[in-house]
Amino acid sequence: MSTKRQATSRARYRHLSTIETRWADNDAYGHVNNTVYYQFFDTAVNRRLVEAGALDIGNSDVIGLVVETQCTYFSSVSFPDLVTVGLKVLHLGNSSVRYEIAVFRNEQDEASAVGEFVHVYVDRKTNRPVPIPANVREVLVPLAD
Amino acid sequence: MSTKRQATSRARYRHLSTIETRWADNDAYGHVNNTVYYQFFDTAVNRRLVEAGALDIGNSDVIGLVVETQCTYFSSVSFPDLVTVGLKVLHLGNSSVRYEIAVFRNEQDEASAVGEFVHVYVDRKTNRPVPIPANVREVLVPLAD
Amino acid sequence: MSTKRQATSRARYRHLSTIETRWADNDAYGHVNNTVYYQFFDTAVNRRLVEAGALDIGNSDVIGLVVETQCTYFSSVSFPDLVTVGLKVLHLGNSSVRYEIAVFRNEQDEASAVGEFVHVYVDRKTNRPVPIPANVREVLVPLAD
Amino acid sequence: MSTKRQATSRARYRHLSTIETRWADNDAYGHVNNTVYYQFFDTAVNRRLVEAGALDIGNSDVIGLVVETQCTYFSSVSFPDLVTVGLKVLHLGNSSVRYEIAVFRNEQDEASAVGEFVHVYVDRKTNRPVPIPANVREVLVPLAD
Repeated sequence: MSTKRQATSRARYRHLSTIETRWADNDAYGHVNNTVYYQFFDTAVNRRLVEAGALDIGNSDVIGLVVETQCTYFSSVSFPDLVTVGLKVLHLGNSSVRYEIAVFRNEQDEASAVGEFVHVYVDRKTNRPVPIPANVREVLVPLAD
Repeated sequence: MSTKRQATSRARYRHLSTIETRWADNDAYGHVNNTVYYQFFDTAVNRRLVEAGALDIGNSDVIGLVVETQCTYFSSVSFPDLVTVGLKVLHLGNSSVRYEIAVFRNEQDEASAVGEFVHVYVDRKTNRPVPIPANVREVLVPLAD
Repeated sequence: MSTKRQATSRARYRHLSTIETRWADNDAYGHVNNTVYYQFFDTAVNRRLVEAGALDIGNSDVIGLVVETQCTYFSSVSFPDLVTVGLKVLHLGNSSVRYEIAVFRNEQDEASAVGEFVHVYVDRKTNRPVPIPANVREVLVPLAD
Repeated sequence: MSTKRQATSRARYRHLSTIETRWADNDAYGHVNNTVYYQFFDTAVNRRLVEAGALDIGNSDVIGLVVETQCTYFSSVSFPDLVTVGLKVLHLGNSSVRYEIAVFRNEQDEASAVGEFVHVYVDRKTNRPVPIPANVREVLVPLAD
């Protein structure tokens, strides 16, 4: 395996939020299914934006579309674990933002999974890329190094 | 419409637990999809059993299989709402238990949805009904009237 | 258990459509999770409406909101089974429609699960009930007895 | 954006299978949620293995655990689209296999999304990596270049 990504620890992330696992998250092998980690990713990102008042899901003229995601899994998480999600902005461009996101199991300090998540901001009607709005950028800057 | 079920309030339920909504829970109409309420149901029931030490998901010889579920929806819930789930045992039989379950949005006291959920306890290997184990029954009795 | 509903067979349903199970549908007990059957339900109903030209998910002024669902489970389905979903209209009112829906596993003629699903038609903006549109009614009438 | 991955076409993939989208797959923006593509990925991979007789989900002594996934999204898919998933083995190691997977919308020849998916084969009880079993390898070799 050529994977070079390493498990990281909580201190690396600028924002942490928690999310409950669900019974249905466990798959036939008894662990949270690999696809569910991506639900943790877009939940953490969008919740941060909504809570900060920078995203109105039903009405914002400019929205973030997901153009790329990635995840490396180091150890398993299982219902009914409580998950903590760490957010960090790796790159903040004119119309796109690349997050690094880590998933921590219960009280563990070493991540169970680490991935990336890229939003491109577009006009909701035309789907054309636009500059990241100022109020979104204000939320993102503190999440960067 | 012939639905007679009424929205209930929190005081009716013997056990309350919270669960975070997720971005992916919202469907094309911008509200938590009707199927997700059932994820809230079996998450609340099984989490209670696991936390009380009455269910080891991977190893218990006797497990609860879902044989019937029902839900009536009164008002919508949307990500990023926090949901509180109320549990009440309506009927505790020899091998089956019928729960009433309510979903409350954020701080609201009136339920957004109320449903039922029936577990039949079976031998994990033979799938044949068996009496509800004593340690499970200890968890269920306080949830009944 | 007081459940009186019986497993039904394919001939009872006016419309049949197929849907693939997914790896993530299986839960920790190795069978399609109870919540997924409801995904089969609203997929079958809405696909029928879209294919018949009676629903434009993003633009229709009048949409169906789910106000009640129910399911009784008789036998399990597991990935990678192919599921066939049967639709029948039990009651067609002025603004609401009650479907009976059955889930069949692979080639089996006896349903693995049977349930009900109630849509109330509302104005998309006001959320107030409205009469079922004529083009929707044309799709529903042949699904009734 | 630094993404270099390109949309590919159907001829590149050694195995194609179809999967129905579901109503609940559409998220608040009206398109299949980014996390659902990964359900398409592990459904296509595991279905191929099960159909070829190389995986018994409940009983195989050796199973594939997902250690890394990645996806780049080029254009959207929406319910009720029918998706075709293309599989190609990029690298077949001693105990791991890296797939390239593409998602095609309806009749389109250009992929809507392309990603990677890495399985490491482990002993089901110890979770330790083991050589890919011969019957799995027989399924994978024809999927490679």
